Amino acid sequence: MFEIIRRDGLARIGRFTTTSGRTMETPALFPVINPKINTVPARELYDKFGFKSLITNSYIIKNTPDLKEKAQELGLHEMLDFPGIIMTDSGTFQSHMYGEVELTNEEIIEFQKSIGTDIGTVLDIFTEPYWTKEQTAKSIEVTLERTQQACDMKGDMMLNGVAQGSIYTDLREDCARRMATMDIDVHPVGGIVPLMEQYRYAELVDVVMSSKKGLNPNRPVHAFGAGHPMVLALLALMGCDFFDSASYAKFARDDRMMFVDGTFRLQDMESLDCNCPACRGHTLEGLRKMEKKAKTKLIAEHNLYQITQELALVRRYIKEGRLWELAEIRCRAHPALLNALRRLKEYQGVMEMYDPISREGAIFYTGPESRNRPVFKRYLDRLGTRYVPPTRKAAVFPDCQGKPYSRPYAEEFDKARRAGYTPIVMAPFGPVPAELDEMYPLAQSLFPEIMDDETETASEGITYQFLQMMGFESVVFGAENIPDDGTEEFDANLLRAKAVSRYQFGIEATEALFRGEVQLVTSRKTGKIRNVISDGEHVLSMRAGDGMYTLKMEGAKRIVEACPAPFMRVQVMDDSVPFVAEGRNAFAQFVTDCDPEIRLMEEVIVVDRNDTPIATGRAFLVPFEIKQMKKGMAVKVRSGSSDE
Amino acid sequence: MFEIIRRDGLARIGRFTTTSGRTMETPALFPVINPKINTVPARELYDKFGFKSLITNSYIIKNTPDLKEKAQELGLHEMLDFPGIIMTDSGTFQSHMYGEVELTNEEIIEFQKSIGTDIGTVLDIFTEPYWTKEQTAKSIEVTLERTQQACDMKGDMMLNGVAQGSIYTDLREDCARRMATMDIDVHPVGGIVPLMEQYRYAELVDVVMSSKKGLNPNRPVHAFGAGHPMVLALLALMGCDFFDSASYAKFARDDRMMFVDGTFRLQDMESLDCNCPACRGHTLEGLRKMEKKAKTKLIAEHNLYQITQELALVRRYIKEGRLWELAEIRCRAHPALLNALRRLKEYQGVMEMYDPISREGAIFYTGPESRNRPVFKRYLDRLGTRYVPPTRKAAVFPDCQGKPYSRPYAEEFDKARRAGYTPIVMAPFGPVPAELDEMYPLAQSLFPEIMDDETETASEGITYQFLQMMGFESVVFGAENIPDDGTEEFDANLLRAKAVSRYQFGIEATEALFRGEVQLVTSRKTGKIRNVISDGEHVLSMRAGDGMYTLKMEGAKRIVEACPAPFMRVQVMDDSVPFVAEGRNAFAQFVTDCDPEIRLMEEVIVVDRNDTPIATGRAFLVPFEIKQMKKGMAVKVRSGSSDE
Repeated sequence: MFEIIRRDGLARIGRFTTTSGRTMETPALFPVINPKINTVPARELYDKFGFKSLITNSYIIKNTPDLKEKAQELGLHEMLDFPGIIMTDSGTFQSHMYGEVELTNEEIIEFQKSIGTDIGTVLDIFTEPYWTKEQTAKSIEVTLERTQQACDMKGDMMLNGVAQGSIYTDLREDCARRMATMDIDVHPVGGIVPLMEQYRYAELVDVVMSSKKGLNPNRPVHAFGAGHPMVLALLALMGCDFFDSASYAKFARDDRMMFVDGTFRLQDMESLDCNCPACRGHTLEGLRKMEKKAKTKLIAEHNLYQITQELALVRRYIKEGRLWELAEIRCRAHPALLNALRRLKEYQGVMEMYDPISREGAIFYTGPESRNRPVFKRYLDRLGTRYVPPTRKAAVFPDCQGKPYSRPYAEEFDKARRAGYTPIVMAPFGPVPAELDEMYPLAQSLFPEIMDDETETASEGITYQFLQMMGFESVVFGAENIPDDGTEEFDANLLRAKAVSRYQFGIEATEALFRGEVQLVTSRKTGKIRNVISDGEHVLSMRAGDGMYTLKMEGAKRIVEACPAPFMRVQVMDDSVPFVAEGRNAFAQFVTDCDPEIRLMEEVIVVDRNDTPIATGRAFLVPFEIKQMKKGMAVKVRSGSSDE
Repeated sequence: MFEIIRRDGLARIGRFTTTSGRTMETPALFPVINPKINTVPARELYDKFGFKSLITNSYIIKNTPDLKEKAQELGLHEMLDFPGIIMTDSGTFQSHMYGEVELTNEEIIEFQKSIGTDIGTVLDIFTEPYWTKEQTAKSIEVTLERTQQACDMKGDMMLNGVAQGSIYTDLREDCARRMATMDIDVHPVGGIVPLMEQYRYAELVDVVMSSKKGLNPNRPVHAFGAGHPMVLALLALMGCDFFDSASYAKFARDDRMMFVDGTFRLQDMESLDCNCPACRGHTLEGLRKMEKKAKTKLIAEHNLYQITQELALVRRYIKEGRLWELAEIRCRAHPALLNALRRLKEYQGVMEMYDPISREGAIFYTGPESRNRPVFKRYLDRLGTRYVPPTRKAAVFPDCQGKPYSRPYAEEFDKARRAGYTPIVMAPFGPVPAELDEMYPLAQSLFPEIMDDETETASEGITYQFLQMMGFESVVFGAENIPDDGTEEFDANLLRAKAVSRYQFGIEATEALFRGEVQLVTSRKTGKIRNVISDGEHVLSMRAGDGMYTLKMEGAKRIVEACPAPFMRVQVMDDSVPFVAEGRNAFAQFVTDCDPEIRLMEEVIVVDRNDTPIATGRAFLVPFEIKQMKKGMAVKVRSGSSDE
């Protein structure tokens, strides 16, 4: 069972429990144990490093008579002395390394069951990156057949059904979709080791993202063979939950030390500057002179500490909603990784569907690649379709150079409005109308004062496009071109109140929410909008943190009246209506339908099958997940119709 | 005494020895010990964390009767129980914090001497960033006067002469130059704390770089008050050797933990994911609940471990010649730091003078900011002034997209040459003629395949400018526009041999080096150029690592004949001529004159005062340093005239 606890876009913190009742937190790495070379004993992995899972090779065990006997007699857990989750591989990687293996899928599945593995693996076909599309497509069929066979045989053993497809993104997506329908438990993405060995990280992005599109979001995704600390943040960002590493030991035998900024040979290193428990107290010279076996163990331990440290950091950044920032930093360690980061732009659309509507804290810009983040696309999409200029004239202000939007321009904005102009700042996000400048992601973002040409040029281009699209009758640039003697009256708070509402709920819904007499309740301390009262009804409240609204039941009712279903709706079964109406959360298994445009953390309206609003709350799953997953909280309900 | 052991541009690894004989390696940090609040005892700083130096405040000691008495009776080292180097501050920072202090410069210098401090500090005037230029200039005069007074009084105590100047770069540079002439031992750059507190890192760059221009390169530079692990790489890159930190303890008292990616409040953190010896075994919850004093100590220790780890990493990157890469990664932690990185562009010229002519290993591109590195400027400068196109027609090839220059185009290059065209690749470096593509920095650089618009646009612009400047009669773009039936003969190796020689030694010298009959000795294995024999004399050898030449004595003689002094010369005193002629290194104190255009690690010719070449070797100091420094190896001599 896989339970998602926290998320940041596609990335997630989860809890995985095996049929045998063993449990682990994800993202996590399975260190590879070669049962013939015990570099770091399994028990130490568990006790000293805190690994709750490992992976070993059932094919090697099966082909080593004494190991085979021992494993079948004692079971894997006792043989390895490892109380955590044990995954076994099937011999597929051996076939990649050494050509065909003499083994049937049936035999290896049966064998894995017989030794008590927690998660067994199908004998899939490793699709090599140099294969033709035909060869790849054919071998995928074999893999899928064998997976079906394994599903029928698996019994209590959980099963890895490896998604293959070489570098063909359509085959990857198709294979993933078909895997998603089968009775497997974990989704490894296979065949990626050669891409990583050859630093083809951009293709790795293609492979993982196209697989991810098809895979069941309910199951952990395993980047099969990926475990270098350098790539963990990037892979987690793309929604990978499991990793494994044989390199920690292989590299150690070869005197190579892993760091987040690369792998370094002991012979090339200039000093040992590592605070990890394995390295502390050792000098480079001392380590070089160490006896081979002790040295290998020390380096293996060092490599494991680097991995655990980076995974902990990845988890922290996910919890803080800042994994993009960590991945962007890590991808500067090698130009091939920077290339991968840039390739992510191609998947901005997919990632946007999973990107939360707001997050706590500032967004840090790390370079032009930051504009590939889904939040940039989201903002422009909504601005283009949901913004209504309050006047027909625009006054464009240059970028605030790293400062919050309104601060440098407070007086100029007023002057522009008095003269009938709508103030718009040309920012790294594109055009930012003054009405939106306290809202996420605008107010919460930090940019360097010195802007790079790429973002500057893009910002100009988008701003001109926007000015045209909005049909402004006249545009002036800079405050000095605005007439001084304007006398138009305006209510800046009301302009803001409506603009934010349109951004969140659209133009139609905003008409309904702001109908009749509108009264804004503002904070005495900050002067900022708190509540929107329309025709005497409290319809919206604005959060101070992100400058966005929470929707009240009265507001929800108006939206349902004004906008046809499924807009903003999550429809639930009759059975759960009374509970949700009382304010309990709505779970995925009770959802019958939902607006496909709902985004994570967005305000939604829970309705019954007659489209009567019964609650408001925030979406905790995206529509694709609500449909695919049979469990999990779909809507965190704030207030139900019967608890007001 | 300050000895430079290794360097990477302005950054350096040094060994500092006090008059009292205590010694430390730099870059290093002085943890601040507040003698009244002993968060981490001085002895522990030395034994457990390996700090060989600390800083404490003589003003506080002087104003605390029992401390004053104890310090004067026992001496600082015994009072604090610290065997390392003790630096004392003077009360200047207290005047910045609390206004005027009641103390004269004379009193505090005298007091510092009386308690046995290793490095005392003048009571300088802290120039605040909001001060007017007049006020700043005036206060600098006072600081300089007091520094002179302190120099006269210092005796055996070493002295910090603090360079001030607020944010006025001309005042900074002038103050630094005047400090450089005084008898002080360490160059703190003062008044920078408010800039760091306000995240004004770009101005910090201005301040440090303009000070650095004037300071004596023979003395360590101390970024006074800078100690956050986040900024250490950047400051070291600008040539800072000393740092200090009170924050490790101050932040700890406030439950704030330092990391290379920022400072995080314990209350805001989502998990504790730190492998440092202080944190290991603790959970976030456990740490939060800890008793105040123990918690403060643990966090202070954590902060110190982060600092030592980062300093060790900075030292490693300096040794590997890759500090730019670390600084570029670290500056992604906050947009204000990214801004500082971008500001460094303004100092590309100054930094170029210190940038080694080649380095081992690949240059990694981390974003458009990488083009601010001096190596990019150096390449274009030399290309513009020293390149001679072998033909009058150019064939321009698009960027190789992350692959080495010649590999994708080997056949096309030949086709172009047969047709009389000079092949030129439009690369992130700008135009790269095929003859130069195995030379540093071209062959050794890695770029992402997906190039950012900024670098792409710049590369195009520079290439067009270059094509014009070189006066090509015709230019074609892409191999498909080159006629297939060319019959021109060419010697690719000879073209390369000459082009590299011009890049390193200039056009005139190359005429002399390649005169008469030229024979190229190539490697049997790789086919690459090994030696250049001209008129039967071995004049040059090519290094496999960076594709550049080492200069033979015969070559040196020809250059001296062909090119008037001081071109490529380092002139030494008569006394040292016999030693250098025997192959001993040339030291700065014996140099009487040198070519101001010499770059670090460049081939140079050592001559006597009659301009007779006596040795060849590589420059280990730059001209500014050779003039200012009274010691240190100026030229690492390869071969002298009398040892051939």
